[in-house]
Amino acid sequence: MNGAESIIASALASGVEVCFANPGTTELPLVAALDSVREGGRTMRAILGLFEGVCTGAADGYARMADRPALTLVHLGPGFANGIANLHNARRARSPVVNVIGDQATWHREFDAPLTSDIESLARPVSGWIRSIRESKQAAGATAEAIAAAGRMPGQVATLIVPSDCQWNSADGPAPPAARSTLPPIAPDAVDHAAAILRRGAPVALMLGGLALREGGLAAAGRIAASTGCRLICETFFARLEHGAGLPAIERLPYFPDQALKMLSTYRAVVLAGVGDPVAFFGYPNVPSKLIPDGIETATLAGPMQDAAAALEALAHALGAGVSAGGARTAVSRPARPTGALTPPAIAAAIVALMPERAIVMDESATTGGSFFAAAATAPRFTYLSLTGGAIGQGLPAATGAAVACPDRRVIAFQADGSAMYTAQALWTQAREQLDVTTILCNNRSYRILQVELARAGIAEPGRSARSLTDLANPEINWTSIARGLGVPAVRVESADALVKELERALAARGPNLIEMML
Amino acid sequence: MNGAESIIASALASGVEVCFANPGTTELPLVAALDSVREGGRTMRAILGLFEGVCTGAADGYARMADRPALTLVHLGPGFANGIANLHNARRARSPVVNVIGDQATWHREFDAPLTSDIESLARPVSGWIRSIRESKQAAGATAEAIAAAGRMPGQVATLIVPSDCQWNSADGPAPPAARSTLPPIAPDAVDHAAAILRRGAPVALMLGGLALREGGLAAAGRIAASTGCRLICETFFARLEHGAGLPAIERLPYFPDQALKMLSTYRAVVLAGVGDPVAFFGYPNVPSKLIPDGIETATLAGPMQDAAAALEALAHALGAGVSAGGARTAVSRPARPTGALTPPAIAAAIVALMPERAIVMDESATTGGSFFAAAATAPRFTYLSLTGGAIGQGLPAATGAAVACPDRRVIAFQADGSAMYTAQALWTQAREQLDVTTILCNNRSYRILQVELARAGIAEPGRSARSLTDLANPEINWTSIARGLGVPAVRVESADALVKELERALAARGPNLIEMML
Repeated sequence: MNGAESIIASALASGVEVCFANPGTTELPLVAALDSVREGGRTMRAILGLFEGVCTGAADGYARMADRPALTLVHLGPGFANGIANLHNARRARSPVVNVIGDQATWHREFDAPLTSDIESLARPVSGWIRSIRESKQAAGATAEAIAAAGRMPGQVATLIVPSDCQWNSADGPAPPAARSTLPPIAPDAVDHAAAILRRGAPVALMLGGLALREGGLAAAGRIAASTGCRLICETFFARLEHGAGLPAIERLPYFPDQALKMLSTYRAVVLAGVGDPVAFFGYPNVPSKLIPDGIETATLAGPMQDAAAALEALAHALGAGVSAGGARTAVSRPARPTGALTPPAIAAAIVALMPERAIVMDESATTGGSFFAAAATAPRFTYLSLTGGAIGQGLPAATGAAVACPDRRVIAFQADGSAMYTAQALWTQAREQLDVTTILCNNRSYRILQVELARAGIAEPGRSARSLTDLANPEINWTSIARGLGVPAVRVESADALVKELERALAARGPNLIEMML
Repeated sequence: MNGAESIIASALASGVEVCFANPGTTELPLVAALDSVREGGRTMRAILGLFEGVCTGAADGYARMADRPALTLVHLGPGFANGIANLHNARRARSPVVNVIGDQATWHREFDAPLTSDIESLARPVSGWIRSIRESKQAAGATAEAIAAAGRMPGQVATLIVPSDCQWNSADGPAPPAARSTLPPIAPDAVDHAAAILRRGAPVALMLGGLALREGGLAAAGRIAASTGCRLICETFFARLEHGAGLPAIERLPYFPDQALKMLSTYRAVVLAGVGDPVAFFGYPNVPSKLIPDGIETATLAGPMQDAAAALEALAHALGAGVSAGGARTAVSRPARPTGALTPPAIAAAIVALMPERAIVMDESATTGGSFFAAAATAPRFTYLSLTGGAIGQGLPAATGAAVACPDRRVIAFQADGSAMYTAQALWTQAREQLDVTTILCNNRSYRILQVELARAGIAEPGRSARSLTDLANPEINWTSIARGLGVPAVRVESADALVKELERALAARGPNLIEMML
């Protein structure tokens, strides 16, 4: 067994079964090992992405749904760099991801060949754990440690750098799984303090994030709300939210800080569960960074690195909010199929009217999708993924990875056009793997969010450059043509009626498809 | 004048006139400044790329042709990260490039908002100069220094990080251009030593790189070759080579180390001008890293950071190789228009048969283009750009930037399909700016270089994963459809005859176009 084989065997032994790959010459022993290694009767599933950002975004989407890491296999520093943006999103989502990067042979690095670069400097900003090995015999143990480091809850990005000679030189057999750290316990006084705030009476907001947004956390939060009258608010950019009918009513913290400040100013106190003190996405002149206004009492029941679901259970118990108190759950209620103009509310209505049970919605719809969250509150129960780190180009890759993790569920990629252009190559992987992903692409021919921000900054009439740099209409992009070129069936719609017709057809078809909505 | 305006005004004052941009919210004051600032009667030309790798690759191509930097304007850490791969290529090309990155407001950074990241750690591996300013009054001076740092010869990548409050707060007027460092002088004893080696008689190789591959350096090298009988060899991956008729005969160092070692083993001595000791692109088992075999005398006339052209002039003078000794220049000789199968030699012949005078060829053709270098030796004089850093996805963006720098010259992007998929968004910028770029795309439906490397590593029959990870045929990518979707007219050809017909038409048309060659 060589070093590369010991890596793949160790990954399989630790329960990792999928590798999103875009390899190069310095990863070829690992590529060969994907074929030669069988461990515990299993082999690693290798899925090709035609750009590293597809691989890292897919690993993020996979991890959010599977709650365990996939490998990414990418090439050296510059190749890895292409995957950084989506690793940034994975880091903010606290997704477990394990990057395996081939590097120049240990004895070749000093010659500074053209592809040589400082991989560690590139990897550090997105990696919670990073290691470069120097001998092939370190490969197996380092792999098990990387997977354990990534796979604690909540997860993190782990990056393992493997020089090519450490792949082809001989090594020992696979390493057993390494011990994973567990979540720190909930402090009893944090529960008592939150309970005291909630007992003092409304208006209190219980703000939820991270692991609190899974079914268990939401159920406990719903009982607390029913018992105390507090309101539930979720963080703006959640990694994964269970949403729709059967879950307690929840609001979403607005994106723009003035709106968030206004929402939170109506409360006497805010209790945080699975989320840190909320802050503005960007700094603006004369706008505070912190979104909870001064003077409003704030208490942390559980931070983002704690078991917020368990903390909510403990809080519900302390408040005497029993199982039967969760009666305020929403029931399925689908809107009428929209007709007429293809407006953002009509698009949201079409999705909610037609989405199947247990869908996964990856929402990178940006400005077009603002009304979907509220509209979907009565949709059939689904899993909702959002853009966590603000690095656009997450949607199509993460939808791809989610579909790999959940082959029995329909994935809907609700996708802005400007963002889609960053990682459109993901469509090809969806076609190759015949994944059940329906992409609903919002072609509004602009970076609309920047136009909105210019207007908010008081630039009512942008000049020629400002118009040019926020406009995608010249030339007009034909997404139907691009998708077909990448092997994904696609149609263009210009009305709500056409969207309904095509969406119903698309959601019933196997394999990927794309609907281009002309807004 | 605010900080953003002082940056744009200072850039104009230092002679920078083009900005390849993909801005976000933290760059909006700079976007507004592009419109509001006029300096010395000039405004900054802003060109939108739909992905940061387009912007950085375009800035590289622009710099190679214009010999001065363009700005890139990109968003925060993750956005910048999308441009790293092509900055890596620019760094290896020693191209002058100035990145301007907006960052979170100074007082907002501590709150670790979702898009916050360690930009300096990301930028350092590709930047020869880097600075983060902390006050708006530093913006003008830092801009002038960044441009001076980038624009020394040979150039480098300079990265200026500007928090958003340093853009919107008030600043002083533009800074004057800063002093640029000059190239270190050539050591007289290096000239004497090289002359002594060459006087001792053949076989000697004069290996050229960097600035030695411009017209002046090549002319001096040609006189030296005519006078001494030495052979001229250029580095494998040159940033910019003047090539074709009227220039001295030159060979290219092969990519694979065994072939390079074999070529160089036939010489008694190697003299280096504008290039370091050549090394293998990757390390392989039992293959040396250094490509000049042991025992062959090596002398450095000028390193890559010296004025190799001046050194060659001095060497020619020392050898008494006068102007008239350059008689061995090649004459224009175009091959017959190829017919029949669409083979790599037929493609090279078609390009050489039809390319116009003073074309710029950006060659990222990978395995398909191997025969073009030799075939083009008798082509009409042209400028030849290659993939310098091995980070694929350079070709289409660099062709875009070269066309911006040289609007009166035809750019030919000779492009591999796997590499094109990394930065295909560049086609849209070509369409928007109506640049005269003809892309000749080699659709061989594979990462052929990896298949070749697997065979060279002794893996004669790759397994299922190895085949899957090197194969782009399932599904087949339709580049004609993708190009049209991005606004570029495109056709598909399957024979040499069809290529000749379509290439002749494409090269005569204004604006961009693409020919997809099915190999």
